[in-house]
Amino acid sequence: MTELGRRIDARIRNIPDFPKPGILFKDITPILQDGSLFHDVIAALYEPLKNEALNYVAGIESRGFIFASALASKLGAGIILLRKPGKLPWRTVRATYQLEYGTDAIEMHEDAVKPGDRVAVVDDLLATGGTATAACCLLRDCGAEVRHVLFMIELGFLSGREKLRSAGFSQIHSLLCY
Amino acid sequence: MTELGRRIDARIRNIPDFPKPGILFKDITPILQDGSLFHDVIAALYEPLKNEALNYVAGIESRGFIFASALASKLGAGIILLRKPGKLPWRTVRATYQLEYGTDAIEMHEDAVKPGDRVAVVDDLLATGGTATAACCLLRDCGAEVRHVLFMIELGFLSGREKLRSAGFSQIHSLLCY
Repeated sequence: MTELGRRIDARIRNIPDFPKPGILFKDITPILQDGSLFHDVIAALYEPLKNEALNYVAGIESRGFIFASALASKLGAGIILLRKPGKLPWRTVRATYQLEYGTDAIEMHEDAVKPGDRVAVVDDLLATGGTATAACCLLRDCGAEVRHVLFMIELGFLSGREKLRSAGFSQIHSLLCY
Repeated sequence: MTELGRRIDARIRNIPDFPKPGILFKDITPILQDGSLFHDVIAALYEPLKNEALNYVAGIESRGFIFASALASKLGAGIILLRKPGKLPWRTVRATYQLEYGTDAIEMHEDAVKPGDRVAVVDDLLATGGTATAACCLLRDCGAEVRHVLFMIELGFLSGREKLRSAGFSQIHSLLCY
């Protein structure tokens, strides 16, 4: 574990049975509240992106928006919002993905990217990778090049990284892996 | 209207009847997608805050998170999430406020601020001011000093600014007022 990983780990608050029984939720609000730590998290996520000439940083609803915005602001790039169905007001494109029971979906505006746009995708946490993989596929299906996929935290035992890799997304970064 | 206001106005997409009939929704995603414009928006919102020695920028769910994050990152401050009921995983404090029909509420974690913390509150749009006023009151009730309240867009005809002022919050900024 890196020194930054240790600092993140020390601030994560584990919440049992949230949002439903059996899930141990990683509450990241203490990290966001720590201005100095948040600054270092953004600096570390920025590192692999800084020479990529990205057009956009895409954030996955809703905690991903926080990381996407700070990174886009630092890079001078635009922000793309990847949202749950029905949340975006205009015309959307959608990717559906499998859950343990049933399906879920993620949407973005149909004018969000043009063919050839260079994009990084970011979220707070990589678990099974279902949402992140769907998000990356949606961007690629619209012609964008997904250059990097970034997370502050990765739950390695849930193999989300393998799911992303199988779908063809190989530049995956996390600052702390459990 | 300032030149920045004109640039914002030119990018807003008006969506009739979203999220419900009779509402003309201001879609700000084209502004977020424009890296150069988003950069200038953040720079303008940063201006009144830069010498304030703020501890936190508080963002109102969920588009407010985008502005709060970029501003906090630039200021070296922490971020506080003000969320709809049930979304925050840990122990929360809540402010309830009146809607035209019924009530709504906003929550934050009970350890979000300490007495004396200096905070700015930000959201994308000021309409009637119900949510923003509740958010500012909640922070003040917990001992924080709400130094500034910022919006990218203000719907002046809905008098949200007056509601905030009546509640004792006088440093209100918007980049574009309709």
